[in-house]
Parts: sequence; C-alpha cells; structure tokens
Amino acid sequence: MHAIGKRRWIIAEGYLPPPDASLSRQLSSHETACMLNAGDVPAQVTITIFFADREPAGPYRVTIAPRRTLHLRFNDLTDPEAIPADTDYASLIESDVPIVVQHTRLDSRRAGLALMTTTAYACD
Amino acid sequence: MHAIGKRRWIIAEGYLPPPDASLSRQLSSHETACMLNAGDVPAQVTITIFFADREPAGPYRVTIAPRRTLHLRFNDLTDPEAIPADTDYASLIESDVPIVVQHTRLDSRRAGLALMTTTAYACD
Amino acid sequence: MHAIGKRRWIIAEGYLPPPDASLSRQLSSHETACMLNAGDVPAQVTITIFFADREPAGPYRVTIAPRRTLHLRFNDLTDPEAIPADTDYASLIESDVPIVVQHTRLDSRRAGLALMTTTAYACD
Amino acid sequence: MHAIGKRRWIIAEGYLPPPDASLSRQLSSHETACMLNAGDVPAQVTITIFFADREPAGPYRVTIAPRRTLHLRFNDLTDPEAIPADTDYASLIESDVPIVVQHTRLDSRRAGLALMTTTAYACD
Repeated sequence: MHAIGKRRWIIAEGYLPPPDASLSRQLSSHETACMLNAGDVPAQVTITIFFADREPAGPYRVTIAPRRTLHLRFNDLTDPEAIPADTDYASLIESDVPIVVQHTRLDSRRAGLALMTTTAYACD
Repeated sequence: MHAIGKRRWIIAEGYLPPPDASLSRQLSSHETACMLNAGDVPAQVTITIFFADREPAGPYRVTIAPRRTLHLRFNDLTDPEAIPADTDYASLIESDVPIVVQHTRLDSRRAGLALMTTTAYACD
Repeated sequence: MHAIGKRRWIIAEGYLPPPDASLSRQLSSHETACMLNAGDVPAQVTITIFFADREPAGPYRVTIAPRRTLHLRFNDLTDPEAIPADTDYASLIESDVPIVVQHTRLDSRRAGLALMTTTAYACD
Repeated sequence: MHAIGKRRWIIAEGYLPPPDASLSRQLSSHETACMLNAGDVPAQVTITIFFADREPAGPYRVTIAPRRTLHLRFNDLTDPEAIPADTDYASLIESDVPIVVQHTRLDSRRAGLALMTTTAYACD
C-alpha cells in the first residue's frame, strides 16, 4: 500500500456550536477533520488554528498509524489550548507523509440534525 | 464517449448511523459512493475500507457497466464482511479505467433529514 | 473579464426526491447545477444524464449569457425527456468555453430542510 | 509561515434566503465565504457578484490581515450595493496574495437547521 494524498491541507471554515450537555457524544455538535493515512508508515500531523482577531494557536500534534483513519474532533483538542466555542476559526493540517483530509460538521443546536462535509483544500 | 475522471479516489469520512428498521430504504440513514463510468468499457472497481483501530477490510469488488452510474451504499457491502454501524471508517476506491466519485450521506437519526456531499479526493 | 474554469464537469450524484405539490418553488425538493460564465461570450452548454440501468439521456442544451450565472434545476429539464423522480442519475456538463459548476440539492421530504453542495469534478 | 492557496476562487452557488428578524445572528440564514490568509502580508480581496439577468455588482473590497481568517457573510456586503435576498447569484473572489476559500450556507427557513459547505473552485 502506497501513501496517498498531500502533505498540507486547509479547512477555511471552522465553528464549534456551543455545547449541549444533554446530548450524547454521537449527537452533540462537533467539527471533525477526517484523515486517512493509507501508507505503511505513521503520519506525524501538526495542526495550526487561525482566528479572526488573534495570533494562531498550536501546534497541536497527533499521529495516525499506518493504514488507519483518524476522525479528529476539533472539540477534543486541548493541548496547548482548547478551541473556544462560538468563534470563527480555520485550520492548517500538515503531515510528514501524504494523507487525505475531509472536513465535516454535525450541528444539533436545533431539532433535527444538520450535516456538512467537503474534501479539504490540498497543497504541497 | 471517452472515459472521464481518475483511477483512484479517497473518501476520508465514513460513518454509518445505527439502522432504524421503521424507515423506508429511501429515508433510512446511509452513506453512498456515487460513481460514474462515462466510458465505453466496464469499470472493475475495488474498494478498501480503513478503520481507526484495525487492519483494513476488503477488497470489495463491483463492476460499473459502460455509460452507467452506480450509487453504491456502503451499508450494502457484505463480502468479505459488513461494515459495522456507529464506527469511523474511510474508503479507497480503485478502478481499472477512469471514473468519477462523489460521496453522500443521508442521516435520519432525528426528525427531519440531514444531507452532506462532496466530490471525493482524486489521484492517479 | 476572462473566462474562468473548465469545459467539462461531472456531478456523479443525482437524485430527485418525489415532488410535493403543497410546497412553493423555493422550498420544494430540487437538484441544481449552479453554473457561472464569467467570460465575455455566451457559453453553449450540453448536458448528458447517465442512469444505472439504461442508456444516457440527452443532449439537453442551455446557453449562459456572458457574465451571468445560471442555476439550472434538473427538475426543469424536459427536452428531449424529463428526468424521472426517485431514480439515481449522474450528469456530464460540457461547455464550449470555460465555466464553473457547483452542485446543490435541497430536500424537503420531511419537516425541516436538508441541503448539500459541492464543487463539481472538473476536467478538460 | 508561507502564503497558501490560490489568487482566484469561484463560488458558483449563491442564494440568500429571506431574512427572519426573530432569529439571532448565529441562527439566521446566511451565506459565508470563509477565507484564510495563512501568509505574513495582508490580503487585499476583491469580490464580484454575478446574477442571472443583470450585469455584475462590485467590486466589493475587504482586507484579511496576516495569519487571520475572515468568515465573510454575503448578507453583510453593502458597498457598492446590498445583494438582494431570494435571488440567484455567484461570486468571484480575487486576492493579491494566495488565500483559501470555503463556501458555507446556514438555512433556518424551516424548523431545524440546514447546512452545506464546499471548498470553492480555485484557479490562478
């Protein structure tokens, strides 16, 4: 299995709806970077978060094992700092080996669910 | 009619909501790989499913006839094994001739419908 | 203003939910190919519709005036034949000058709305 | 930090649902161009809005500071003219330095929310 994809990805949209403790983890609002490492070596991934009115946060670091997918919720990032809710952000995802990144938001602020997804913007 | 597209596609997002037997096939939650073979020869397609914590599943094999579209529900894949519900996955779709792949999820876990779609990530 | 985009686009997903005559045109379910002709000459556009189990339909022909956008509802295509509801399809959009194509579905089968969109797949 | 992305982007879909004054800014219907300037110099951005039946509007001008994201609501554009609601449009976004653009619509016309997003079409 060869590595597939690119080493740098951008998700220009980012927004965490305010949390609602009454909902399960599956149905609470969240944003996710779905990442696939199809290759045979671990992917060392660094994430930088950009805001509208302050310097970027990060780097956040995660590892994706070979031949594994990681659906990373931005809500779960806490080191070096949590991403505030109800705040516009954007993200830069950099990997030492090629990966593929798809962005998803599930929003359950009102009755029903809202979903959106897009393949992120790739560049090397 | 010439073949159009690429031979390798990635959908990094994958998630099958738990099934609800009270809903019709049209309205039950599903994820779909919408594939178009615009060319004049059959497309032999192989799908590999990646997970967060185990080795990949597959290969799953389907054929798309010339000048036909196949909207393949991941829920319908059973050979060599079904994809478990409520589990993160990602997919690699490989074809012997160029095709185009678009990813869609319909989610009916709560009242109302949620939809999302994206052109998959293409590479050759 | 120069022409921008590509001459061939694919939307691999296509599905028209059954119509509901009780809803307004704005809120009834529909699929749209949003096309932009940013250039200074008319774009002559030809659409071919592919199905799962029969030969393609078309060509459907539309013209996009210079510096205009056309949000074409697939539901409105009738010549040479209407696209049946509740049927999987895919579309090939060809233009004699570069255009940009984005796909959108609004689904109002159940309470609430569902929306999805993606930049179509471009090739030349 | 280097600049990332492209200098010209197209969002072929555009539609502002009629406003509902009873909703908060977070939950009222809107369309957004989420833009990231990952570079170290300001991005001077010019937006042109195309319609179905009249000449384009604009240019609208915004600046994105270095290492900042701007989630620009089309509803907020007023100079040289507001974009009318319930009207099809498309947008061309041009920057003097590379940026990345993602399109999002939140639609709250009916109960529940509908969301859609896509990476815009990039060209240079």
